[in-house]
Parts: sequence; C-alpha cells; structure tokens
Amino acid sequence: MQYRRITIAPSIMCADLCNLEKSVKELEKEGFDTLHVDIIDGYFSPSMPLGIDTIKQLRKITNMNFDIHIMANNNEFFIQEMIKIGVQQISFHVETSIHIDRYIQLIKKNGIKVGIALNPATSLSVLDYVLPQCDTILLMLINPGFATDKNEKQVSYAIKKVEDLYQLIKEKGLDTRIEVDGRVSFDTIPGLVRAGADILVAGSTSLFMPSNSLAENKKSMEKYILEGLSEEVK
Amino acid sequence: MQYRRITIAPSIMCADLCNLEKSVKELEKEGFDTLHVDIIDGYFSPSMPLGIDTIKQLRKITNMNFDIHIMANNNEFFIQEMIKIGVQQISFHVETSIHIDRYIQLIKKNGIKVGIALNPATSLSVLDYVLPQCDTILLMLINPGFATDKNEKQVSYAIKKVEDLYQLIKEKGLDTRIEVDGRVSFDTIPGLVRAGADILVAGSTSLFMPSNSLAENKKSMEKYILEGLSEEVK
Amino acid sequence: MQYRRITIAPSIMCADLCNLEKSVKELEKEGFDTLHVDIIDGYFSPSMPLGIDTIKQLRKITNMNFDIHIMANNNEFFIQEMIKIGVQQISFHVETSIHIDRYIQLIKKNGIKVGIALNPATSLSVLDYVLPQCDTILLMLINPGFATDKNEKQVSYAIKKVEDLYQLIKEKGLDTRIEVDGRVSFDTIPGLVRAGADILVAGSTSLFMPSNSLAENKKSMEKYILEGLSEEVK
Amino acid sequence: MQYRRITIAPSIMCADLCNLEKSVKELEKEGFDTLHVDIIDGYFSPSMPLGIDTIKQLRKITNMNFDIHIMANNNEFFIQEMIKIGVQQISFHVETSIHIDRYIQLIKKNGIKVGIALNPATSLSVLDYVLPQCDTILLMLINPGFATDKNEKQVSYAIKKVEDLYQLIKEKGLDTRIEVDGRVSFDTIPGLVRAGADILVAGSTSLFMPSNSLAENKKSMEKYILEGLSEEVK
Amino acid sequence: MQYRRITIAPSIMCADLCNLEKSVKELEKEGFDTLHVDIIDGYFSPSMPLGIDTIKQLRKITNMNFDIHIMANNNEFFIQEMIKIGVQQISFHVETSIHIDRYIQLIKKNGIKVGIALNPATSLSVLDYVLPQCDTILLMLINPGFATDKNEKQVSYAIKKVEDLYQLIKEKGLDTRIEVDGRVSFDTIPGLVRAGADILVAGSTSLFMPSNSLAENKKSMEKYILEGLSEEVK
Amino acid sequence: MQYRRITIAPSIMCADLCNLEKSVKELEKEGFDTLHVDIIDGYFSPSMPLGIDTIKQLRKITNMNFDIHIMANNNEFFIQEMIKIGVQQISFHVETSIHIDRYIQLIKKNGIKVGIALNPATSLSVLDYVLPQCDTILLMLINPGFATDKNEKQVSYAIKKVEDLYQLIKEKGLDTRIEVDGRVSFDTIPGLVRAGADILVAGSTSLFMPSNSLAENKKSMEKYILEGLSEEVK
Repeated sequence: MQYRRITIAPSIMCADLCNLEKSVKELEKEGFDTLHVDIIDGYFSPSMPLGIDTIKQLRKITNMNFDIHIMANNNEFFIQEMIKIGVQQISFHVETSIHIDRYIQLIKKNGIKVGIALNPATSLSVLDYVLPQCDTILLMLINPGFATDKNEKQVSYAIKKVEDLYQLIKEKGLDTRIEVDGRVSFDTIPGLVRAGADILVAGSTSLFMPSNSLAENKKSMEKYILEGLSEEVK
Repeated sequence: MQYRRITIAPSIMCADLCNLEKSVKELEKEGFDTLHVDIIDGYFSPSMPLGIDTIKQLRKITNMNFDIHIMANNNEFFIQEMIKIGVQQISFHVETSIHIDRYIQLIKKNGIKVGIALNPATSLSVLDYVLPQCDTILLMLINPGFATDKNEKQVSYAIKKVEDLYQLIKEKGLDTRIEVDGRVSFDTIPGLVRAGADILVAGSTSLFMPSNSLAENKKSMEKYILEGLSEEVK
Repeated sequence: MQYRRITIAPSIMCADLCNLEKSVKELEKEGFDTLHVDIIDGYFSPSMPLGIDTIKQLRKITNMNFDIHIMANNNEFFIQEMIKIGVQQISFHVETSIHIDRYIQLIKKNGIKVGIALNPATSLSVLDYVLPQCDTILLMLINPGFATDKNEKQVSYAIKKVEDLYQLIKEKGLDTRIEVDGRVSFDTIPGLVRAGADILVAGSTSLFMPSNSLAENKKSMEKYILEGLSEEVK
Repeated sequence: MQYRRITIAPSIMCADLCNLEKSVKELEKEGFDTLHVDIIDGYFSPSMPLGIDTIKQLRKITNMNFDIHIMANNNEFFIQEMIKIGVQQISFHVETSIHIDRYIQLIKKNGIKVGIALNPATSLSVLDYVLPQCDTILLMLINPGFATDKNEKQVSYAIKKVEDLYQLIKEKGLDTRIEVDGRVSFDTIPGLVRAGADILVAGSTSLFMPSNSLAENKKSMEKYILEGLSEEVK
Repeated sequence: MQYRRITIAPSIMCADLCNLEKSVKELEKEGFDTLHVDIIDGYFSPSMPLGIDTIKQLRKITNMNFDIHIMANNNEFFIQEMIKIGVQQISFHVETSIHIDRYIQLIKKNGIKVGIALNPATSLSVLDYVLPQCDTILLMLINPGFATDKNEKQVSYAIKKVEDLYQLIKEKGLDTRIEVDGRVSFDTIPGLVRAGADILVAGSTSLFMPSNSLAENKKSMEKYILEGLSEEVK
Repeated sequence: MQYRRITIAPSIMCADLCNLEKSVKELEKEGFDTLHVDIIDGYFSPSMPLGIDTIKQLRKITNMNFDIHIMANNNEFFIQEMIKIGVQQISFHVETSIHIDRYIQLIKKNGIKVGIALNPATSLSVLDYVLPQCDTILLMLINPGFATDKNEKQVSYAIKKVEDLYQLIKEKGLDTRIEVDGRVSFDTIPGLVRAGADILVAGSTSLFMPSNSLAENKKSMEKYILEGLSEEVK
C-alpha cells in the first residue's frame, strides 16, 4: 500500500519575521524541506509581506527548497530576481501575464520548477495549452493579499476546483502537482487532499496556529492529511 | 399558466439629465421599480455619462432599486463608492478585474446583489467558477461607451450568447438572472426574451423613443416582452 | 475711480444635481454669466462629481459661459470632449500634462480661453514659458477631489501664492486672470481679492451656503469682494 | 485534384531595412502578393522592429497586400493608423484587448480583413463568439518580440494548437484562415500545413535563409508546403 | 559652545535581515534612537528591500523612531500603511506625487513628522510652497534602488545641493532638517555636515562597514561628524 | 576671426525611408557627419516614425554620428537598446523621467554623449543640478509627434528660450551645446543661431525642402547660419 506524496510548504509570511534564521532552523529541525515565499508588490493586491533582500539573505542560511509565489503586476522583473537568488520553484499569476509561455520557458531554462497560479475565479481554460509545461498549478482558495479581510473564508468552490484540475491532469496523463493556498486549515485539509491537492501551503490556520507548538501542529496536519488520503490506495 | 418575471430597467443615461428628479418621478409613476445607472470612467471606454455625486443626490429623492453598471478600469474604487451610496445591485466587468471573487464578496457582504458584466466578445468560460455566486450576469450586446458609433448595431451573436448562458444556468440548476444591455429595442425584445433574458436595460431604442410618451413606449415594450414569453409556460 | 473686474463663478457641483435646469435658471436670474464645471475622472483624485453627458445637456439649456476645470490623467480626451460641447474656457492641470503647450494651442485654436491649473504645492516655475499664452491661471487652494476630507482648510500659503502670481503677471506686463478655487469663503474672499484674485470659484462656503438664499449669499460675496478691492484704485 | 490555397507572407522585418524598395521589388518579382508587417510598440514586448512612417512610405511603392500584425498595448491607436495608411488585413492581440468586438467592427467597416492574434499560451476559448467575425486567426508559435531569445524554438504544442483551431473552424462550417507565425521553417512547414495552416509568415528560417537566394528559398518552401498538402485532396 | 544636533539614522536594509531583532537590539544598545527604513515597490526603481509585514513586526519589538523613506509609485497606499503601523517620520518622493500637499497633511494630522524626498537631479524649486510645511527634506545623493550599480558614486553635485537647501532654509527662517541618503561614508560625512546635513542615513559605507564592529564604526562616524561641525559655533 | 561651430543634423525621418542606404550615402557625400534619429514610442505622443531594427541596420552601413532623440515613456528600455546598437549621442525627455541622473550616468559610462530634451513649455529649472553633466540640451520648439498638426508653427517663445539657456550656460561657465528641433527653417535659422543654438535638426522645412536639391538646401542653410553668426566674433 502506498500513498501519494503530500508536501507541506510552511509559509514564511507566518513565521517570526524579526527572527527568520531561528524560524527557519526550527522548520528544518521539524523535517520540512520546502519554504513557501509570497512576493506581493502592493499593486497586484494591497499587501507587501516581505522584500527581495530578505529572500536573498534567507537563501544564504538554509538549503530548504524555496517555493516562490509571485503576486505582482510585473512578473518578468520578479521572476528574474528570483532566478538570480537561486530558488527551486517559481509560480506566477496568469491574470497579470501576457507572455505566459515566455515566463514558463524563462524559468525552466534556468533549471527551476515552474508553477502557474490562479486566482479563485479564474477558469481552468487558461491552462489549455500550458498545463503540460508546468510542474505545479497553484490554486488560490482565498483572494490573495487583502489583509483587511482576515476572516474571509475559503471560497465555497475550492474543493470543486481542485477536483476539476485533478481530473484534467489525469485525463492528459500528466503528473503535474496541485498546490493549494489560502485557509488550508485542519478543517479543510482532508477534503483538499481527497480532492487531489499535493502541496499544502501551511499558514496561520494550521502549522502556525499560535496555541500549539510547531511540532504539535505538524503532527495534526499529518493526521488530517492521512485522513484525506485514506481512501486512496495505489 | 405563469410567465417568468421580466424586469424593465430604464437607463438613467437616456433621461433628461437637467431634470433628473422630474424624470425619476415619471418613471416611478409608470410603475418602474428599477433604475439602471451606467458609470463609465473615460478610460474603460471614451465616455463618462454621469458622475458619482449625481447618483448620490438621486439616491435621496427616490426609493427605486439602483442597478449599477460599472464600466471602469478601477472597479474597487467605484464599487466602494456605490456601497457607500446605498444601491441594490452592482455589476462590474470581468475584462478589467483581477480579483473577481474579491469584488463579488465585497458586494455581497454589504447586502447588495452582484452581477458580472461581459463585453460582447468575452467567452462564458470566465464564469466557470463564479456563476453560482452571482445574482445576475449582464451581457453587453453592443460595445460599451463608444459614443461616436451611435448607429452600431447589436452584435450578430447576441441571441446565441443569451441562449448559451440560459442553457448554462439551467444545467447548473441556478436561478441567476440574465440582463441584456445595448440596442434592446422593440425589434430585438421578443428574441432576447425568448432566448432567456430576464432584465432588459431600456434606452433610446425602446422606453425613451422620442416619438412616443413614456407610457406608450412602456406599453409597447410589454407587448413585445409578452410576444417573447408566449411560447413559455411554467 | 474704477475697480478691477472680479468674476464670481458658481460651481455647478454645489447646485442641485437632480434639478440642474432649475438651478441654472436661478443663477442666470441672479445675473451670473459664468458657470464653473469640475470634471474629475476618479484617477487624478478619488472623486467624479458629474459626467460629460450632463454637461452636454446643460449646454443646451443655458448661454452661460462654461468655465471647465479638468482634473484628469488623460487631459487630451477631456479637452477634446469639451471642445465638441462648446465651452468658453478650459483649464487643465500641469501635474498630469506632458504636452502643456500642445493643449494650450489645441484649446486656443478652437476659440476657447485657456487656463492652466496648479495644485497647491506646485511651483510657479512651471509657468516660465507658458504664462503669456494663458488667459487664466487657476490656483487650487485645497487638494482637489478628496471628498473624505471635507473639513480640510485652505492651505496656509494660499495668499502668498496668489500674491506671487500677481507679481509675476505684473512683471511680465500681462493681463492674465487669476482664478482661485477651494474654500473661497466669506472669510477668505477679502484677502484673496486683495492679493490679486480675479475669478472666485463659489461653492458651499459662500454662494451655496445653505442657511441663506442665493441672492443673500451673492450680496455677501459682493460685500467681501468690495472689501478686498477697497484699497485698490486705478 | 485541387489543393487548398496556401499563402506565403514574407515578413518585412527580415528584409533589408536600408533598402526596402529593392527588397519589396524582389518579392514582387518572385510573385508574392502579400507582405507581413509586424508592429511592436516596445511595451507589449521589448522590441520595436519598424515604424509607422516606414509603412506609410512602403505603401506608396507597392501594391502588395499589407498583412499587419499589431503587437501593442494600445490597439486602437495602431489600428486607426493602419486604416489611414490603407492596408489589406489587420490582426491584433486579444491579450491586450478589452473591446475585441469593437476592433473587429472598426477594421471591417473600413473594408479591411480582420485577424485575431493569439499568444502561444492563449486558450482558443477566447474565440467562442468572435471566430465567425474573423477572416483570419493568427497563431503565434513563439513568444513575440523577445529578441534576446533568438534560439527559442517553436512551442512544443504548435501543431496541436493548429489542429484544434482547424477542427473548431470545420465544426462551425467557417472558412476562417489560419495564419502561423514564429519559426515557420523548412522543418516545420509540412507539419503546420498538414495541421491546417493557410498562411505562413516567412522569415529568417525559411524565405530569408541567408545561404540561398530568394528564388531558391521560395522553391524549397513550395516543396515543403506540397509535402504538407499531399494527403489532402478536395 | 554648542553644536547643531546631528542624527545618525542606521539603515535597516544594511542590517542582518534574518536576525532583525538582534540587529535592532544592538543598535539600541549603541544608543541609536532612529531607524531608517526604506520601502521600495519594485516600480519606482528595480528593488524591493523589505516588506510591510516585516516593518509591522519590527514595530512590536522596539521603541526606536521609525524614519520611513517611501520610494514608490503609489505613495498614498504606502503612507496609509505606515500610519497604521505607527511610525515617527514619513518621507515620500515628489517625482511620483501629484498631490504633495495632500500627503503632507495626511501625515501631519496623524501626528507624524513629514519629509519630502528628492532624487539627485530634482530642482529645489519643487519646494517653493511646501518647504515650511515639512519637518525634513531628504536629499538622495545616489540614484535610489538601482542595485546593479553598487559602485555608483555619490553625485558630484551632492555638496552643492545640500548647501543650496541649507541656504534656502536659512533665508526662510525655518528649522527644517536636511537628511542625506546615499554613500554617506567616512569620506563624505565631514563635507556633508559642513554643508548643512542634519540627519545622516548610515549604511554599508559607514556604520555597517563589515571590517569593524558597530561600536567602532559609530565612533568613526562621530569623529567625522565632529570634523564637519568644527567650524560651526552657535 | 572665428565663428562658433554649428552642426547641421539631418533628420532621418525626413529621408526616403524605403531607400535609407541611398539617402544616407547622399548625406555623407554632402559632408554631413551627424544623423538625427527620432524614436517615438506611440505613447509619449501619437507617432512612431521608425523602429529599432531599422536603426540597427543603419548602423552597419554608415559611420555617421547617430544623434538619438528618444521620445518615450520608458526611457530606460530605449536608452539600453541604443547603447547596444552603438550610437554617439542620446537625448531623453525629462517630462517622462523619474531617474534623470541615473540615465545620464548610464549613457555616459558607455562613452556616449548625453543630452536632455525639453518640451516647449518645460521650465529650465529642471536643469538646476544636471546641466553640468550634459553635453547637449535639446529644446523642442514644436510639440513633438503630433503629426496631424503639420502646420503647427514654432512656439512664439522659441528664441527667448534659446537665449535663456545660452545665458545659463555662460553663467555657469559651461560649454554645453544647444540643440534646436522643430521648424528649424530658412526663416528661423538666423534668429536661432543668433540666440545661441549650436546644433540644428534639419528636416522638411530646410534641408529636405522638396523643391531643391540636397546640395542647394545645404548651401542655403549655411548662408542663413552665417547670417545668424555674423554678429559674433570670438
């Protein structure tokens, strides 16, 4: 019996930004190998969590895989900066991209995994020709970067969208991974995994729940992941 | 035998803008309960029919439902302004929206009905995930705001698009209403209604035809609506 | 003994926007021959008082001089629209103009008076070469279009700026008129007139003060203007 | 036995830009009747091959059909300029178009053929309502205008996309022509023609291969076209 | 004998971004009370040192004065964010500001000191009317945010510009402070102080010189400041 | 007795764009060593005379000095392209430049002469700190790129602006050259030269007057230049 591999990608935004080295070392100690890093430019949406120089310095103190999620109007600039820093995966949003194929090739020819990120409302039809070129599709399950709506819930069609994408990937015989981002909480994890999610961006409603330790939250996440996987045997 | 409810939404743009109070009172007297208000910002298209302050003052003199149609590059700003004024429905264009789901939620949590507006050429695939969240889909049947092309006709695929949307709504078991805007004339009304239109934006080619009185035009519209409905029995 | 001619330009924004014909007729009856019309596009600043179609219809019911004040990012578009409508003066902001001389010529060759509008902080050095080409310089004395700051006061350097401009005009031997806009109230009128203002944009703190009739407010304005002029004898 | 008509459209960008008259005369002499002209504005992508004035002067020295491919952020401006010059076909990109139907009508009412251009990644769903209005669909098979990536290959899904579009056109019973642009080389021509391409934009990898004469390259192209057509008999 | 008060404002950008708490505590221990924080949006110039969330968390761990330098296209957004965080001074660039007076008032009415920042080439004439409203004028002495030009030197007219501004402030009888930013090194400090600089943004060429300890660098800075002040006795 | 050196810079825009090689050879034969090349991007103003690839090919066939005049919104992009091509002077407009000093340094460190271009209305105060860094100041004497206004005349303050700039340069003891562009005709040349112009951009109203040969027009220009210089003896 073998399960699908599920990746937990802790979101650096939810760590202690004044003590990043310490935070990252704790994550490493807990066995995480992927760090999800959000770059928002303040124009795509009214938010700018952390800067490029911070990522540059982070790169020097850890070997974790950097899973970059660019939420910006000028994708080309931020992609180029991330390539220079040396990251492992870059996802950019289709909603602000005129040259989607260009960005995919730019990322890939630098030996970096590529993801396309979709806002909640965006139709999967934007993937018609580029799904096979992507390593990952990142589905936003809340509206990215609207900090004032902190109690915004996951969109009601989250599960359906993951299922649709999963179906599409199967039909095409691909092994593209599905990354889910936005209120990936203990409550929603089983359903998302069941629907086909492969990478879970973990933030303040799961791994960084302040009431428990990192280790405890990790254990809980794994339990819920397993619950989601339980019906799946390959 | 019972017909579908069809709403006639008189367009304020076609009223006497120097005597709005009088115009609105006449519409009320004729029994209309909905006022269609176009907001164009001069950038989405080269037109700017009326301003926000005008709508603000209109709000104070009538209880009609304000059915706002935003045609703008900065949807967020105009949506926020309309929420402040107190309107009953807000439709915004997908072509200028990056955060479609965000705008839907912003409108709905203020107790206002939400519509998504589509330019003539825009594919219905943009509705894949948000159709169930919408109260209305507004289909533009001419190109919005190009005042210089006054004799532009309704696009040739108008009926087909209404039919396709109607079909989509039925398939999903929804009760989303279809609003049609652009040359909704005596000639085109029966066909549009037959195809599935629920809300007719009434302008200079129907309700505001200068040759007849408002009452006469209303009577004509009702006749043509009935013609369109005649084959439909629920 | 002869005084300088001072023009009171009632701001249409402060009139009853649902009964513009009535408002304009009242202004005509009180002997005003100039109507100040603000066009804000929602991008220059977060406001959009009234639309182009409204101005178009206004044009048909009055012979008053339309003194247009464009506050927009795309000056060319709005200038062209105003030329089509047939207005008597157009002022546009330098802060959003790359082709200042071009706009001046465009307006003048259509037989329309031209004004350059300056935000409060803008240096008069922007006028170095175009002052002699202008009929009017419009000085904003509050920040235009920030409706939420209703109790914003006139900038503290208002009088000084009017004086500086007045001096500049005298030095060059020109007869350019100085238009002042923003909290031109009973309190500030004497000082502004004394400093050299020729055209007073009259709004809610003077001509449209709700506590008195239009006629009474007009009389008060004239009294304060005379106070400002009293030391001037030509 | 009769073959489909295939058009070779030599790209002016690949001609001798310092001796355009000579280049064009050579093309005419070889029997070409169509000239493919790329207009890139430097913003759509970082390239600006040739200017409007150049096209204007070209127009005066040849009767060839000008097949204009606009790659720009401001489609309306460039379409209007091309209409003034007098061209035979204008294609514009959907990725930068809010008013697609408007542009189609603008071009058609001037008696000019209209094409919609799609970037490699763009889904065919954007054509849902406008395919029947178009004379041509231009499929970009490389990312347009990124000059620095000269050794970029045709996208791997080029053939599939042409086939899908061909299928779509057949299903709707239309005679829309498929134009292919980007590395249309001796290698790729047979496959593209077989998949359904009707117009081949010929550049540095076919007609303008520096190792052979124009006549020789033309002959080669025709051979490869015939190879692609060989299985097709109507 | 009494010297002018000179403030050293350590630039957070040059600190250890992975251990900000530690860095800030060290600065506090050395007696610094002001922290210079650069916010660049990636559009004003191709750089984005650190994010808003980082500043938000920094705010919670120190009582140092935050001296914010916004280098952005959308000043209003970043000013509002900084007000929410609670900072002590905000400087914004005139080159991207249409509503300079508006921003000044917005900052001041929140009890925050206000600065206007000028790029090297920008004329002091932009200060004609707003100098008296400002607490600080920040003069950029290198081009802000062009990280690739690390060995760019201070502009040759740096001293002259500080002197001109100093003169202007004296003439107007103001006590506006002059802040200098960009290659404020041991070499340049005496001259800048002599010319009239009051606040020195300290970065990698002074306080954060890697060869010495923070304490040593501080001592050196003080020595050079004193050298600059030596001719001044009040 | 010795005159100032005056440079005639023939504008390539006015040459035969379909036979550029021939045109350039004729200019070389007449002894011209400088070619004025306008790059307009269609956004700065509604015009796009010729493209980058054309300039690239021109570079290969002549050793003339390329005097590039960029009229664009994105100066950085076009400056970088011109540096790659290898030109001798680049002028860019201040009206679209936020980082003026940055562009000056970028151009100079590539061993290229730098010019700042000013629209007619732009105040010389923008040169306060950068005049000494520039080799040339280019004064536009008509509004650049508005092709539809072909019979637009030189601005009435042309001579005064050249004189003012000349005075400024003298006062600072610099040898910056003054370039004038726009209706530099036989009529206006003597006055412009007398006022201090050093480089004359020659177009359709002088060197390219269709009624005479290039040689004849050159001779006329020289005569008018001499007339302008006649009062000057060094």
